[in-house]
Amino acid sequence: MKTVNIGLIGLGTVGTGLVKALNANGPILKKRLGIDLNLLLIAEKNWRKARDVKIPLSLRASGARALIADPRIDIVVELIGGCGDARSYIVEALKRGKHVVTANKALLAAHGEGIFEQARRGGLDLYYEASVCGAIPIIKTIREGLASNRISSIFGIVNGTCNYILSRMTESGMEFAEALGEAQRLGYAEANPALDIEGDDSAHKLAILATLASGLWIPLRAIYTEGITHVSLMDIRYAREFDRVIKLLAIFKRQGNAVEARVHPTLIPARHLLASVSGAHNAVCVNGHPAGEIVLYGSGAGQDPTASAVLSDIIDIALNIRRGCAGRISPVARGGRAAIKQIDEIETQYYLRFSVIDRPGVLAGITGILGRLQIGIASVIQTERGGTVPVVIMTHRALERNVRKALARIDRLPFVKAKTTLIRVEENL
Amino acid sequence: MKTVNIGLIGLGTVGTGLVKALNANGPILKKRLGIDLNLLLIAEKNWRKARDVKIPLSLRASGARALIADPRIDIVVELIGGCGDARSYIVEALKRGKHVVTANKALLAAHGEGIFEQARRGGLDLYYEASVCGAIPIIKTIREGLASNRISSIFGIVNGTCNYILSRMTESGMEFAEALGEAQRLGYAEANPALDIEGDDSAHKLAILATLASGLWIPLRAIYTEGITHVSLMDIRYAREFDRVIKLLAIFKRQGNAVEARVHPTLIPARHLLASVSGAHNAVCVNGHPAGEIVLYGSGAGQDPTASAVLSDIIDIALNIRRGCAGRISPVARGGRAAIKQIDEIETQYYLRFSVIDRPGVLAGITGILGRLQIGIASVIQTERGGTVPVVIMTHRALERNVRKALARIDRLPFVKAKTTLIRVEENL
Repeated sequence: MKTVNIGLIGLGTVGTGLVKALNANGPILKKRLGIDLNLLLIAEKNWRKARDVKIPLSLRASGARALIADPRIDIVVELIGGCGDARSYIVEALKRGKHVVTANKALLAAHGEGIFEQARRGGLDLYYEASVCGAIPIIKTIREGLASNRISSIFGIVNGTCNYILSRMTESGMEFAEALGEAQRLGYAEANPALDIEGDDSAHKLAILATLASGLWIPLRAIYTEGITHVSLMDIRYAREFDRVIKLLAIFKRQGNAVEARVHPTLIPARHLLASVSGAHNAVCVNGHPAGEIVLYGSGAGQDPTASAVLSDIIDIALNIRRGCAGRISPVARGGRAAIKQIDEIETQYYLRFSVIDRPGVLAGITGILGRLQIGIASVIQTERGGTVPVVIMTHRALERNVRKALARIDRLPFVKAKTTLIRVEENL
Repeated sequence: MKTVNIGLIGLGTVGTGLVKALNANGPILKKRLGIDLNLLLIAEKNWRKARDVKIPLSLRASGARALIADPRIDIVVELIGGCGDARSYIVEALKRGKHVVTANKALLAAHGEGIFEQARRGGLDLYYEASVCGAIPIIKTIREGLASNRISSIFGIVNGTCNYILSRMTESGMEFAEALGEAQRLGYAEANPALDIEGDDSAHKLAILATLASGLWIPLRAIYTEGITHVSLMDIRYAREFDRVIKLLAIFKRQGNAVEARVHPTLIPARHLLASVSGAHNAVCVNGHPAGEIVLYGSGAGQDPTASAVLSDIIDIALNIRRGCAGRISPVARGGRAAIKQIDEIETQYYLRFSVIDRPGVLAGITGILGRLQIGIASVIQTERGGTVPVVIMTHRALERNVRKALARIDRLPFVKAKTTLIRVEENL
């Protein structure tokens, strides 16, 4: 029986999950695959931390570099995260001809271009299913299951924290701060939640998905990123009036060479499957030709789901090692760099909530400015009366540059009492 | 550049879709993969049929056997369906050392065991993504994306015709016959819809999924199969009272060696994602450890979606051919035969609709019989009064044998006016 030796760097939450999964399913996998997936060494800085797995002393490497240098190791699994040590470990492992499995979205989003290229040149496997959406096999689906397709768009709920918060606001009428507090108490949000709620985590994942889907390198800095901190319960309720739900979406679109890649709260039709994705779950909707629309849903984070993805990657590589066909599939296709549309250049529909003094002529003032900038109005809601009231307008498709110009003008009108809220709308997911 | 020669048997709907997909995406695939997927020969009995693709004369094989015998052909794509010629073509192709792609669910469900074994012995690839759920990469997901998992259950909406009919009944209040008629007019149902609405098509797909997920051969005849012809609008409306939706589900469950494989209409919680799958779409929910719950959704049939799956399979095999690693993954794991529970032996909850004369003592008579057979009652609805009325009972978990015994007795009671309707319930998908 073929033995494949695994070196694990980082025994945190996911690393511990991997050890547990190997303990639980290793014997059945050995039988199923005819391969012994042998966890040979683990490098970890802090062995004193309490963990719910017991690691024999013989598995403890003297350090990550020693682990990488060990000639017995076939696959290096990097689970420490971040762009510092992780990067140099992966680069070093590839240099030494090791295959790599990583869950490191921040690293791949920032430095994937060079790392992917290094793996390709070395004829090595670099797998990263766990970097996007935990247990959901979205990387494999785009790379292989939809290999025959031209992918025209991706719409993803890829951050469980944000989806939990928005779901609680929608289902239980909580305000943002209350829902965030609950998410923190339940462990769905970090003590410092910025990376999640500001949208950056979603942008990392989108960079990876969009690069994979297009074969074009999508740099992180080109992704327009807006979090959910400005979404209010009021907007969620108005959205419902339009039969819409607000989700934080990671959006990729491609028409020929025109590429869009952006992360922001989005009104989507309540009847779309993504609108039914609640709690901390993730889901990704991919549109391709000839497949049509495919949606994948599951647990996007957590010890076990992420370990599932890491271990499935290890299996894929082990199958390649046995047959001597490493590098059988490129980590990404190679198609150059993408020219990504600036956010100003996109065209979509908009939900606009104005705070205005309730008096005659106000709507005429607003719609006049919108009209002069070619922004058509699909519908208007003004239910409250007296004092300062919200007026909500859904536009037809319009150029974002024009919408921003219009809002800059409108927000200077004397009867407008607060900055206008803008949320983008996706009608045809 | 590596050229992989493809021989296509059957230029029907899906075959035509494959030709179109190759025409549309072939150039980009060549660039992406560095492989020329070359459609070398097509075998088709009726060249006179009108098709929306033009096939050069040079591609027309003199017959399927000649195509299979052609030494240039690397991959034989079987798209004629059925268990007759298709079987002998696939067997012959494997004998001659050709790799095979097929969309033939009936054949694999009935004769997969031998065909898979033949491919394995020959070290050949036999791919069949298109046999289950069209464009949805469910085979790849179970075989590879979740390779690290022990799969404990699968719940699938795998027949678009039935889901279309049930969706229309649910959303528009149509009776079964009316919804079926509409499905036929729109092309979602065949003129002879039996294979779909009696559940057999779903059973074929379940046999394949369950065999793949368990590594145990699940014979078609062991799958309890019940279609949707007895589902009435009344049942759909009562289901809603319980916050449930009725779907035709293909169900696989495994606990140790206890395996269930069954197809029947099922009440599922309205909040579950599968409940939101409407129209002719398919979706499959897979539960595994450590991945948790994964749902895949998409177009389960049709020319383009099915061609997407066929072509993605061709790509997978072409990548293996280039690297000389055919047979890298077994078509199924090899774990012997499954001992499948008889339907009598399953335990679940039941929705029971009795037609009874509205008079005192009736409920006592029914519940007395249920109680004596250890069938606990979760809730009762009787909204109508006078004459013959429906009484609906949701049970707790009970043994099906007992439920059947109870119904046999109840249906003989003098105040029971029609055969009781039984629909199984799945609480924890």
